[in-house]
Amino acid sequence: MMVFLVGAGPGDPGLITARGLELIRSCGVLVHDRLVCDELVSEAPADAIRIGRGQMDQDEVNRLLVLYGRRSLDVVRLKGGDPFVFGRGGEEALVLAEAGVPFEIVPGVSSLSAVPAAAGIPVTHRGVSSQVTIANGQGPVDFAALARAGGTLVFFMGLARLEEIACGLIEHGLAPEMPAALVSAGTTPEQEAVVATLATLADAAKGFPPPALIVVGGVVALSERLTSVRGTLALA
Amino acid sequence: MMVFLVGAGPGDPGLITARGLELIRSCGVLVHDRLVCDELVSEAPADAIRIGRGQMDQDEVNRLLVLYGRRSLDVVRLKGGDPFVFGRGGEEALVLAEAGVPFEIVPGVSSLSAVPAAAGIPVTHRGVSSQVTIANGQGPVDFAALARAGGTLVFFMGLARLEEIACGLIEHGLAPEMPAALVSAGTTPEQEAVVATLATLADAAKGFPPPALIVVGGVVALSERLTSVRGTLALA
Repeated sequence: MMVFLVGAGPGDPGLITARGLELIRSCGVLVHDRLVCDELVSEAPADAIRIGRGQMDQDEVNRLLVLYGRRSLDVVRLKGGDPFVFGRGGEEALVLAEAGVPFEIVPGVSSLSAVPAAAGIPVTHRGVSSQVTIANGQGPVDFAALARAGGTLVFFMGLARLEEIACGLIEHGLAPEMPAALVSAGTTPEQEAVVATLATLADAAKGFPPPALIVVGGVVALSERLTSVRGTLALA
Repeated sequence: MMVFLVGAGPGDPGLITARGLELIRSCGVLVHDRLVCDELVSEAPADAIRIGRGQMDQDEVNRLLVLYGRRSLDVVRLKGGDPFVFGRGGEEALVLAEAGVPFEIVPGVSSLSAVPAAAGIPVTHRGVSSQVTIANGQGPVDFAALARAGGTLVFFMGLARLEEIACGLIEHGLAPEMPAALVSAGTTPEQEAVVATLATLADAAKGFPPPALIVVGGVVALSERLTSVRGTLALA
């Protein structure tokens, strides 16, 4: 009896960890997010309880995990990406710890490097970038700090504010010509990517659906030479 | 005939991806780094050519990948962590692209979140940190920018300069009481972790062996409440 907070990876079902897949295949209860692909959900045993999170709020999910975690069943809580990178895994872990329910974190491949990789972009590259800053595009953004951070910038959940983010970075000193990319549905068959500049990205990425990742920095310019990588790459 | 640049994950062999493991199990040639665990190397077919990188320099590795990539064999280049997060995967990919050798990037679980997780530290946590900056502890470090970055700081390869890094951050404005942790050999049976403050970390972590990750920020203080996570955790 244990609750496993498992990262499903960035989208491609092959990118779950070997241990995560093994846990899904032997679980009694599977609680999964909307963005987790069907292929992984279908790996649970035929008699496992499967609960899609759907519209449940975080409190309901927390209650469910404690409830099932107290029964004599192994529970897999399957989350997109990595549970501890914008995955709210910490909140669920704290609730379980406070309720005395044993749990384990099983990390996943985070979109932060896998999604740029699928568009031919290494987030670090010798002589180009030895630093990566990952920010939440939905929350308050400190443009001044990000513009002077140096290295690669990766925004999660920034699609709806793409123009504001690009303008904010330019206003605070990043060059309008700085290479920038948007990758939608990265690592899945629906992946679409566009490589542009900070000044042109919002226009170039018009109509791209969520979920999407924004990547800003010199490394983005490498994508043209790295197109043998899986995934669709449109150059704008 | 393809070269797969595969991330082995942070140390625990169960944290390789399902696809990465499948590729190792069917490869003709396996070229692996020193830090990759024996369990994964031994998954290659009995008749596969196994090449430990040992003391080879990067140019020699590049030449080997092109050489074997041109034969009618599938080559797995197995690297610790993720190939594109301080993995020099971009350099190898460029060499392959320029040589016309088809390749694919198979991302891995990066230490950046998995190693802190193994010590009970979520790199992001609602209300505590919605930003993560990953820096190379070996290279030139812009302490002023890092000290004002906000959120969580993660240093790779910073063990040898731990005191310099902690002092640099304090001199540029971070509080000496800021929670800070060092995790050595994260996710492996040899894992050792210590939670302290910026002011006390260098002393507290004396004698810890590499590889090690430094984590700085408010999220480090959550580790005490999240100790059900796998791994040894010493509180200093």
